[in-house]
Amino acid sequence: MSAWETYLRDNQRRFHDEYLEFLRIPSISALPAHADDVRRAADWVADRLRTAGLDDVQILPTGGHPVVYGAWLHAPDRPTILIYGHFDTQPADPIDLWTTPPFAPDVRDGRVYARGASDDKGNMLIPILAMEALLRGDGALPVNVKVFFEGQEEILSPQLPAFLEAHRDLLVCDLVVSADSGQYAEDQPSLTLGNRGACGVQIDVRGPRDDLHSGTYGGAVVNPIHALVDLLHSMRGPDGVVLIEGFYDDVVPLDAAACDAIVAVPFDEEAYREKLDVPGFGGEEGYTINERRWARPTLEVNGIWGGFQGDGMKTVLPSAAHAKISCRLVPHQDPARIARLVAAHAEQHAPDGVTVSASPTNAGARPYLIPAEHWGNQAAAAVLEELYGKEPYLVRTGGSVPVCDLFLRTLGAYTVGFGFALDDEQVHAPNEFFRLSSFERGPVAYGTLLHRLAYHMS
Amino acid sequence: MSAWETYLRDNQRRFHDEYLEFLRIPSISALPAHADDVRRAADWVADRLRTAGLDDVQILPTGGHPVVYGAWLHAPDRPTILIYGHFDTQPADPIDLWTTPPFAPDVRDGRVYARGASDDKGNMLIPILAMEALLRGDGALPVNVKVFFEGQEEILSPQLPAFLEAHRDLLVCDLVVSADSGQYAEDQPSLTLGNRGACGVQIDVRGPRDDLHSGTYGGAVVNPIHALVDLLHSMRGPDGVVLIEGFYDDVVPLDAAACDAIVAVPFDEEAYREKLDVPGFGGEEGYTINERRWARPTLEVNGIWGGFQGDGMKTVLPSAAHAKISCRLVPHQDPARIARLVAAHAEQHAPDGVTVSASPTNAGARPYLIPAEHWGNQAAAAVLEELYGKEPYLVRTGGSVPVCDLFLRTLGAYTVGFGFALDDEQVHAPNEFFRLSSFERGPVAYGTLLHRLAYHMS
Repeated sequence: MSAWETYLRDNQRRFHDEYLEFLRIPSISALPAHADDVRRAADWVADRLRTAGLDDVQILPTGGHPVVYGAWLHAPDRPTILIYGHFDTQPADPIDLWTTPPFAPDVRDGRVYARGASDDKGNMLIPILAMEALLRGDGALPVNVKVFFEGQEEILSPQLPAFLEAHRDLLVCDLVVSADSGQYAEDQPSLTLGNRGACGVQIDVRGPRDDLHSGTYGGAVVNPIHALVDLLHSMRGPDGVVLIEGFYDDVVPLDAAACDAIVAVPFDEEAYREKLDVPGFGGEEGYTINERRWARPTLEVNGIWGGFQGDGMKTVLPSAAHAKISCRLVPHQDPARIARLVAAHAEQHAPDGVTVSASPTNAGARPYLIPAEHWGNQAAAAVLEELYGKEPYLVRTGGSVPVCDLFLRTLGAYTVGFGFALDDEQVHAPNEFFRLSSFERGPVAYGTLLHRLAYHMS
Repeated sequence: MSAWETYLRDNQRRFHDEYLEFLRIPSISALPAHADDVRRAADWVADRLRTAGLDDVQILPTGGHPVVYGAWLHAPDRPTILIYGHFDTQPADPIDLWTTPPFAPDVRDGRVYARGASDDKGNMLIPILAMEALLRGDGALPVNVKVFFEGQEEILSPQLPAFLEAHRDLLVCDLVVSADSGQYAEDQPSLTLGNRGACGVQIDVRGPRDDLHSGTYGGAVVNPIHALVDLLHSMRGPDGVVLIEGFYDDVVPLDAAACDAIVAVPFDEEAYREKLDVPGFGGEEGYTINERRWARPTLEVNGIWGGFQGDGMKTVLPSAAHAKISCRLVPHQDPARIARLVAAHAEQHAPDGVTVSASPTNAGARPYLIPAEHWGNQAAAAVLEELYGKEPYLVRTGGSVPVCDLFLRTLGAYTVGFGFALDDEQVHAPNEFFRLSSFERGPVAYGTLLHRLAYHMS
């Protein structure tokens, strides 16, 4: 056992106590009343980085919740790794569903129960512990490291794009390693290669000036709900194929290797069906369920409303109807272009007798995909295989993680997800927990990863 | 001028004062706090009937707001006419849009402004005044008359079906004349031959047990909103043709005479379009706008909802989506059967991956149509032509007036609409009014009608 691994083993109890201390800070970024707690968490992280031996530790203002930066840059000719994570948490509601209070961490059966235990305090503390062990055990890090921990991930990092743009020189690196990530199972590693982008469009259909009596006018005056139904129907085939012109223009078909990687991830369709309590699945012919969720673009109606929603019957022909649409995007779809195509389709296919307007609901997020053969990814895969005795599955997520694309565009560096969260850990829900086994395995993995990255050059 | 007409002229001022007195009673049937006022209005009507000279005046309980009955049955071998109207009113909200208080009637420019002025207190007082004039002037009515004034029309007469069933012998008649009716214009008479029936169905589409993240699950899990959109789209063609199997089975095509009668009613499409502020109209090919509104059945979505309706974007794949549907029906469609067909279509066309349930939202209303050549209708047409110097238009209403079919089924008697409301009188809206010219013309018309009906036998 090398010196840094021995250090990890010998300091486990202290690390454990520090972890619980970190979890006691209710750093809920969404609630203004907790802004000081987010700041306290930033202070805690900064102190912890100094204790670990990092230089130039700074708490940087963003206009919202602060960022914590630190660095160790004494490995000339070695790559520079930016380690990302976040010290803010989701709110804890509904409080009464927690077995023990969310910010009074409780250890039961080898698990630490607390808000933020898995997402992301446990995971972001891990690389700090690894660096402390390397610095105390080996006397140096095998690579240059910058750390970038933010306090607004759970509110979608509104100030992050401008912050990264403004601090590009400070943050420039060869690779980002994100500690806000997870594994497939306790005994099965995985690497998350990509996430889908997203864009949103609201469609507003306007008919008569006022709500009308559906008896007096129905049959001659076009009902905005009917127009909206026809419009939405025109956008999607029954199998979920998107019928908007140009939608698939920039989609690169999955190659054989990508398909193989996705199919290699075991998927129990029946267990999945039972968990969600649905009678079956839908989606595009010719794609597996994981391909549909991870690697195919979608057009989803997130909300629809118009007319009467109360009890019984009210015979109204409403003056308006509305829908909120979001599209999930895959490389190389551009969110702004797709939002424009959706809006244009809505306006061009407006049924007679109504007025249709469509506008984007947000700035959109770009899809992200790291090539499986990228050196950072290969290094992470090798470490996981060594540690678990199994090759990692190459997975993706159907959701959007804008920060990965943001790092790529601003810093020119890909992000490798390297974290230890597991699917059952009640992230964003009551009774969130993290496994102590992950908390102990993680620093060993990170230390090994930093060593391995030393032999790669960008 | 006959004696009864002279009587009408000589008592105009008193009638006018009585009308205003009647309007001061805030007999709002929808508001429990006004139940005593509805009762006061019933007392007022009963007293007024006794003053007019009717016999057997009674206030009859219904379980809800009462009914006022009265009769004059001293014309053996002459038909018995049941005169219908209602003494309850709509609520007056929004109060602040009224120029003068809704229950403090104000006379301006030959119009009486008050809630209920047109609907239906002015119109229902008219036949009472006509009968008083006939009884005082001629000493007798030319026909047998029963009056049936109800106090719950504005809340859809929930107790009426059972009441009519229980009082069939008391109410039996040869013809119903409804004072809850109107004319085409101040100088153009009309007769309303029919109204459409209605039935309502709610459709509930259920997908996953909980709302899901549209990124993680979208593309594989069927979105209940998409399923609902596809389902609603399958029910209607783009031209409003209803695609539900069996929907048109019992519809009798309009014959040439019916079409001619509808086309004979002038219709300014451009003025109508501007009034409603719509860019155009829709509906079935081959039918005029009035045919679509009056004589063709429809399937209308009155309300739709599901998922996120707030500001911005929330990427939810909702667990459920809902729609409220109502169908307008024409002779001889049966509301219960049509509701069953709609529900069956929804359940049979349920897309894979979701569960669809559909259930009626109310008991439904049957369509009603009196043959244009019916003796009651012919008599009314002749009176109107004599009075206005013009043949009446034969119109219909696209809405539902369940009481007409109810009288036909329970009492075996058709209903002729004979009232003097005009379209612009702000019925159910702020600043409702009735023209004093109508209030003065009405009793002459009613007296003439009762005389003319004496020469017809059922």
